[in-house]
Amino acid sequence: MNLGSDNLAGASPKIMAALALAAQDTQNPYGQDDLSIAARAALNRVFEARAEIFFVATGTAANALALAQISKPWSAIFCHATAHINEAEAGAPESLTGGAKIVGIEGADGKINVAGLKAAAGRFRKGWQPHVQPAALSLSQVTECGTLYQQGELAALCAFAHEQGLKVHLDGARFANALVALGCTPAELSWKAGVDVLCLGATKDGAMACEAIMFFNPAHAAEFTWRVKRAGHVLSKGRLLGAQMLAWLDQDHWLDLARHANAMAAHLQQGLCEIAGVERAWPVEANEIFVWLPAAVQQRLRAAGITYASWPTLGTGFTDRPPHEGVFARFVTSFATTPDMIKTLLRVAK
Amino acid sequence: MNLGSDNLAGASPKIMAALALAAQDTQNPYGQDDLSIAARAALNRVFEARAEIFFVATGTAANALALAQISKPWSAIFCHATAHINEAEAGAPESLTGGAKIVGIEGADGKINVAGLKAAAGRFRKGWQPHVQPAALSLSQVTECGTLYQQGELAALCAFAHEQGLKVHLDGARFANALVALGCTPAELSWKAGVDVLCLGATKDGAMACEAIMFFNPAHAAEFTWRVKRAGHVLSKGRLLGAQMLAWLDQDHWLDLARHANAMAAHLQQGLCEIAGVERAWPVEANEIFVWLPAAVQQRLRAAGITYASWPTLGTGFTDRPPHEGVFARFVTSFATTPDMIKTLLRVAK
Amino acid sequence: MNLGSDNLAGASPKIMAALALAAQDTQNPYGQDDLSIAARAALNRVFEARAEIFFVATGTAANALALAQISKPWSAIFCHATAHINEAEAGAPESLTGGAKIVGIEGADGKINVAGLKAAAGRFRKGWQPHVQPAALSLSQVTECGTLYQQGELAALCAFAHEQGLKVHLDGARFANALVALGCTPAELSWKAGVDVLCLGATKDGAMACEAIMFFNPAHAAEFTWRVKRAGHVLSKGRLLGAQMLAWLDQDHWLDLARHANAMAAHLQQGLCEIAGVERAWPVEANEIFVWLPAAVQQRLRAAGITYASWPTLGTGFTDRPPHEGVFARFVTSFATTPDMIKTLLRVAK
Amino acid sequence: MNLGSDNLAGASPKIMAALALAAQDTQNPYGQDDLSIAARAALNRVFEARAEIFFVATGTAANALALAQISKPWSAIFCHATAHINEAEAGAPESLTGGAKIVGIEGADGKINVAGLKAAAGRFRKGWQPHVQPAALSLSQVTECGTLYQQGELAALCAFAHEQGLKVHLDGARFANALVALGCTPAELSWKAGVDVLCLGATKDGAMACEAIMFFNPAHAAEFTWRVKRAGHVLSKGRLLGAQMLAWLDQDHWLDLARHANAMAAHLQQGLCEIAGVERAWPVEANEIFVWLPAAVQQRLRAAGITYASWPTLGTGFTDRPPHEGVFARFVTSFATTPDMIKTLLRVAK
Repeated sequence: MNLGSDNLAGASPKIMAALALAAQDTQNPYGQDDLSIAARAALNRVFEARAEIFFVATGTAANALALAQISKPWSAIFCHATAHINEAEAGAPESLTGGAKIVGIEGADGKINVAGLKAAAGRFRKGWQPHVQPAALSLSQVTECGTLYQQGELAALCAFAHEQGLKVHLDGARFANALVALGCTPAELSWKAGVDVLCLGATKDGAMACEAIMFFNPAHAAEFTWRVKRAGHVLSKGRLLGAQMLAWLDQDHWLDLARHANAMAAHLQQGLCEIAGVERAWPVEANEIFVWLPAAVQQRLRAAGITYASWPTLGTGFTDRPPHEGVFARFVTSFATTPDMIKTLLRVAK
Repeated sequence: MNLGSDNLAGASPKIMAALALAAQDTQNPYGQDDLSIAARAALNRVFEARAEIFFVATGTAANALALAQISKPWSAIFCHATAHINEAEAGAPESLTGGAKIVGIEGADGKINVAGLKAAAGRFRKGWQPHVQPAALSLSQVTECGTLYQQGELAALCAFAHEQGLKVHLDGARFANALVALGCTPAELSWKAGVDVLCLGATKDGAMACEAIMFFNPAHAAEFTWRVKRAGHVLSKGRLLGAQMLAWLDQDHWLDLARHANAMAAHLQQGLCEIAGVERAWPVEANEIFVWLPAAVQQRLRAAGITYASWPTLGTGFTDRPPHEGVFARFVTSFATTPDMIKTLLRVAK
Repeated sequence: MNLGSDNLAGASPKIMAALALAAQDTQNPYGQDDLSIAARAALNRVFEARAEIFFVATGTAANALALAQISKPWSAIFCHATAHINEAEAGAPESLTGGAKIVGIEGADGKINVAGLKAAAGRFRKGWQPHVQPAALSLSQVTECGTLYQQGELAALCAFAHEQGLKVHLDGARFANALVALGCTPAELSWKAGVDVLCLGATKDGAMACEAIMFFNPAHAAEFTWRVKRAGHVLSKGRLLGAQMLAWLDQDHWLDLARHANAMAAHLQQGLCEIAGVERAWPVEANEIFVWLPAAVQQRLRAAGITYASWPTLGTGFTDRPPHEGVFARFVTSFATTPDMIKTLLRVAK
Repeated sequence: MNLGSDNLAGASPKIMAALALAAQDTQNPYGQDDLSIAARAALNRVFEARAEIFFVATGTAANALALAQISKPWSAIFCHATAHINEAEAGAPESLTGGAKIVGIEGADGKINVAGLKAAAGRFRKGWQPHVQPAALSLSQVTECGTLYQQGELAALCAFAHEQGLKVHLDGARFANALVALGCTPAELSWKAGVDVLCLGATKDGAMACEAIMFFNPAHAAEFTWRVKRAGHVLSKGRLLGAQMLAWLDQDHWLDLARHANAMAAHLQQGLCEIAGVERAWPVEANEIFVWLPAAVQQRLRAAGITYASWPTLGTGFTDRPPHEGVFARFVTSFATTPDMIKTLLRVAK
């Protein structure tokens, strides 16, 4: 059993069945197939939007291309210091933006607040040649610490960003998990809150490889098609992406998958926190759990072949607490996590 | 019926079945899953090689990343003027190399010859600061004109390139079609002929989205992993690629698929050339057919809903012949083309 | 004596005196000094324009930055095959544009004509994702072959370019030489003819290092200041550039210097062409002379220590004539070339 | 009077005289002129080195190109949070490296220490694909706070960096000021301490525009010439740079100029600190002074037309002290600052 990430799971049978079906006929290439066209329409329906939508196979590509589109090479892009774009994409945003500056901002629980953003933005003088120029705010929902921006927090950040002339990007690798946790509509958690471009990840929520880039203002997408193409991200048989997205959205499949993952996480965190010596780093609000594990627990899990992600950097660098004994561990549940797995894990750990 | 390209077909049932199976268990992410590992081993077995191998989802990414790895931003990369990297990737090679110069070379039948390469390379003074510096030769096998480099031609070009200090890249989007047409071993048509890095395409030969980048000299692959990552081309669930590749290679499935496509093309071209006024542009050596179609044929096909690719640029720009009446058309057969489809097409056309 | 290029000369005493004076007081940095401000005003006066103007120290920087500003990374930029930006800047335009495609067009006497441009542009399908998109036409005046676009030729090319949605860049490394040869006003040979951005070179016409980038439509210069800065081209003590430009323009100094250089070239070419076996490649219309020199002449010049540029590529690749015996040579006169030098050269050569 | 920066001064008469002389004859272009060749030899003599040396016209270009040469696009480059490359070059290092990550490290008095570097470097896992890979340490000597690394501090940082596989870049925009303050030899303060590449600035120390990039290990400079060229930084008349450098080094002119500037700063800071309410932010070790000025002092200076740099960001962001009343001001003395100017300034301020 390995609960180190939600990208260790495979894909939901419903999505795979749709894919098999999609492989059987003739379709236009490069995203002009019937399935991709239908998937874009479905997304706009679900989001009550008229967005320009593009599909790519990885979240890194989605984020980096979206950011490139709303910035210039001489831009500053603000994000939380722990953000995936800042910490875990090997500089893809710097690469695809042509060298924009990703500026990490500290903030409790993996979240930026308006004061932090204001201070960071204030360090760059507008119109001053030696300074890169603020262009975008990138937020992660779910955050890298497994926490959530409440709708109001999101709206306040977007409002301030817009005041400053920044566009807002939302890294929604786990957007579905946030959605079901907060009980909002997709629109409320994106464009109605002020998000300009959403990278909506299906991959971690039961698809094999599918991310949508949604520009809620179509004008922001001008010429984006070439940006995607020349990064090598236009799939020849685009139906691979369209078919997944369609099946994922169909009959709230995406929400069901996310609801399941969140429920498993809630169950797991409750059990873990009852174990002596286990200490939770941040509130568990979606499907990620960060805890310090005592050495004994650690050994018992290892002996049973139960794996999680060891995350020393995050543990020491991004919390105010003193370094702990034991390991700083991340558990992530997915659509494929079963109640039995949680039961087993907790039994072993105790 | 649409025979405009081999990327209009879906994927072979065998490959899709493998994919469905691959979706069911827990696997490491980022290409370290069991299937990708096995696929790399299988490729090395089939190619009698010890190559460093990476999988990506698009041919454009494979080509551009491979070229970036064997060049510098101040390099010249030689290819045929019609090459996909020069004409049809929206500048992805320029983008991912950091601005290298793609130098198109003319040559009959879509092929470069040694004299042409020598003349092109001779225009750049080695070590002279104002000149970009020759670094790589990129060949396409099958060429963009549907023709083939014989093994000897390939070897001669590679030998000359190596003499000049160039590394050789092979765009093998239709490598399998070339292989079965020429009756060589994979090794003979790649590293034994002098190819340094092969972009081996499965997508056009029955897979959904899978390309392998094979560095036959592992030293050439140093740090390549970051190049792929920061272009956003490392799939989170890498099994998507590994599973396809494994099934594609299994029991010569890839060769069977290509053999079928080539046979369909041979059948089609024979029939087309018997029609009065149809003129073939280049020898049909794999699965692509380029012909001038008289207006009457064109109308009959259109009326029957039979589609092909109209290719005016290639028709007038890359052959010595005078412009023809009628349309310059490309037909491409695939694993999914049936004898009945060919029969119907020919019946309508006549 | 070395007449291989006009960049072998130093700088005019008047310009150096202005520079010495400029070194003596306190001035704002980064191009906001009094001299740069005055130089921008003077240029606008001389060109009857309201251009946004930037100064840089090299022609390569001027060209590459200007082109980057009027294109996108996925653009095609058209120029003559022999253009400096295509042949002699080590890929700087590709670098600073983020990988745009420089498309060389053949044309007699180093000049593009409308038909050639039309054919080249026609090869790129507008709005089609696999194709880079035409964005700019770059012309050189004086051309790399030492010839000139007549005002009407220039206007026709600009008109066609604008029809096609292209912006027009003029590489004016020897603009002053063209101006005095054609007897136009600066405005007639730039914005009135349709040029959008002019790179006006003072360096080859008697300055030490000074090039102006003039955007005749100020809207085209938006955010250009950061483009210049992040390429490292904003001089700390910007007066270095402003002082040169001011002195260069003062009392038609720039035109006097160019007139002298052109006169020397006319004198030299006349004498050379009287020598048996010397054959001129192209009309000598400014300050550059391209000729085939018989071996005997070559030896006599070498023995006397008289140097020119040997230019084998240009000689064989860009003229229709059969390869010649002897060397293909370029002579370039400058403000510093004296009648005595010409006399000596001709006496030795005969 | 404006003491906001040392780039507001002009250039020393000796250097300007050398420049005027250099303008008078025929020289090879592109840095192959006699003066540049002699200047490279002189630098190697003065530094007791066999460095590969390149001249450019701006410090931003020198830094960004040097960093690009010792890193990859997927590298992390460490520097102090206040470093010029991080704060004041509009992203030029990101641009010319192809998107490397500049990682700012906090540290007292504008200096990094080994513990800080260790902590920063420790956040990147070596060989781990999602992480950019540490490649270089960039130090500024004089620092942006006007302080100095002692020779031992420098050596310790370089030693640790080398242990970690990092190359060391020194931004020596004010290297001469550091040298005379510390009483070291040039070698001791560069390669003997472990510096791999030094950007030696003459511009702020009495030249007009001249920076040397010195690779102490010539192997590190491989192909650097094209990097410089395609950034547009190879001057056509390279003598402009060579002549300045030669004159600057001649008979310790550079050290005399720096000694004078430092002396003026010492004089000024002493006087300022005697004024009630003036508080110094950091030790004044070279030619830069950072102080909080009471409102009254501020008004008196303004009334007298005496200007300095107001530096609010640095004042609040990079010191531990609480925000002060009044303005946070930077005074920088130069070769052109006179004792009379200091006297006047102090008389007014008091």
